[in-house]
Amino acid sequence: MKIMNFTADGKEKAGIMKGETITELSCSVIEALNSPNIEFKENKVYNIKNIAINSPVFPSKVICVGLNYKDHAKELKMDLPDDPVIFLKPPTSVIGHLDNIIYPASSKQVDYEAEFGIVISKEARNITGNDAEEYIGGYTVFNDVTARDLQQKDIQWTRAKSFDTFAPIGPYIETELDPSNLNISLKLNGEYKQKSNTKNMIFNVYELVEFVSDIMTLKPGDIIATGTPPGVGPMKIGDTVEAEVEGIGILCNYVK
Amino acid sequence: MKIMNFTADGKEKAGIMKGETITELSCSVIEALNSPNIEFKENKVYNIKNIAINSPVFPSKVICVGLNYKDHAKELKMDLPDDPVIFLKPPTSVIGHLDNIIYPASSKQVDYEAEFGIVISKEARNITGNDAEEYIGGYTVFNDVTARDLQQKDIQWTRAKSFDTFAPIGPYIETELDPSNLNISLKLNGEYKQKSNTKNMIFNVYELVEFVSDIMTLKPGDIIATGTPPGVGPMKIGDTVEAEVEGIGILCNYVK
Repeated sequence: MKIMNFTADGKEKAGIMKGETITELSCSVIEALNSPNIEFKENKVYNIKNIAINSPVFPSKVICVGLNYKDHAKELKMDLPDDPVIFLKPPTSVIGHLDNIIYPASSKQVDYEAEFGIVISKEARNITGNDAEEYIGGYTVFNDVTARDLQQKDIQWTRAKSFDTFAPIGPYIETELDPSNLNISLKLNGEYKQKSNTKNMIFNVYELVEFVSDIMTLKPGDIIATGTPPGVGPMKIGDTVEAEVEGIGILCNYVK
Repeated sequence: MKIMNFTADGKEKAGIMKGETITELSCSVIEALNSPNIEFKENKVYNIKNIAINSPVFPSKVICVGLNYKDHAKELKMDLPDDPVIFLKPPTSVIGHLDNIIYPASSKQVDYEAEFGIVISKEARNITGNDAEEYIGGYTVFNDVTARDLQQKDIQWTRAKSFDTFAPIGPYIETELDPSNLNISLKLNGEYKQKSNTKNMIFNVYELVEFVSDIMTLKPGDIIATGTPPGVGPMKIGDTVEAEVEGIGILCNYVK
């Protein structure tokens, strides 16, 4: 099931997408993720051509994982890490599908990083990997946009990763998905730049929920972005960037 | 004027403190910071002994500045940085005055870091230093609690700084304060460990608002913690830690 936020008739709504048809929910995305019986608004059906897609969640925090693909570690000739390395993006960096990534004046190199995103549906604190699935509402696509020059200059990654518009999320949350073996890819202006599979992840989604929830309480709607595969590189103004995860969809953004 | 959040009669309230008396506001802390005429609830007056103090804000993000005291840079034999180095703490790390700092099982060294905190009162994006004062609602005391061993292990500071309870804020927001020349200190179990003055800051509060708002949109209630002076060190379970800024007050917490 694909759950989403969208704007239609000038109002923000939540819905379920099937093919090109979106049926409006009578509750929020987070409520739908936690509800055994989803209720719809009667006769509230939209075609995807007539709506604007918003971020499927408005997280209180976005937790990102650094190096987490074996093939990426190999590319960088780095040892596999003992623990995940995490960093945060602020809520103000979040944008949705088809929104613009704004190139900041202070950077000369802004890179794409396609990622597989975990959507937390219930408050989670000190969760073991075995119990993690219960706290995951579904999965989405994420682009960990990064001002590479500032990342290298600062050592700390926060400035480079925290600009407004640097956290595209979407277009949907897919609730029925086995996360262990999914192709993930990224196209820049139609040309493949990243291609891998979630089976190459060093720490799997359940291990990541355990690790992060041991540090901080996760809230419904929070996102854990699980790291990027090989092939990261720069974007320039005018580019179109499409991150795709098998079974979810394509998250497309424009660089302005 | 000292503005605060507190709990009395089992309810969360906002108020103004004078001496030992708190008068309840008819609006929130953020509304009071932005209002020219503050309105009070009639006959709603409490003695400080009968209430519990909460964090004066519930920020959407906490932006912390690394090395920002000349005397601390000298102590560490480091060059003064060209730009502030920033990092984020999640909203879930925030606690108030007299709350417990919980020692995480994964760390063997948790340090205090007394800091002077800027409270943002209006949405701020691309603000110049000259205009920054208009977006600052007041100032508070902050303790940038840090798992030093994990900070050194991870290189990235996020895990070390992001545990639940690692961002004590308070006890009040002082709205009438010249930030340029204030003593800042920290006592551990009654003994002075940190002593400096905000005049030793490398980047002043207006420069920091300019720098951060050039990266990310600041929201009302967001905190910029402006770095710690020399003398940081470890706490152990059972300790009492008191951070103080002249003109604001003492932020006291217990280590559990």
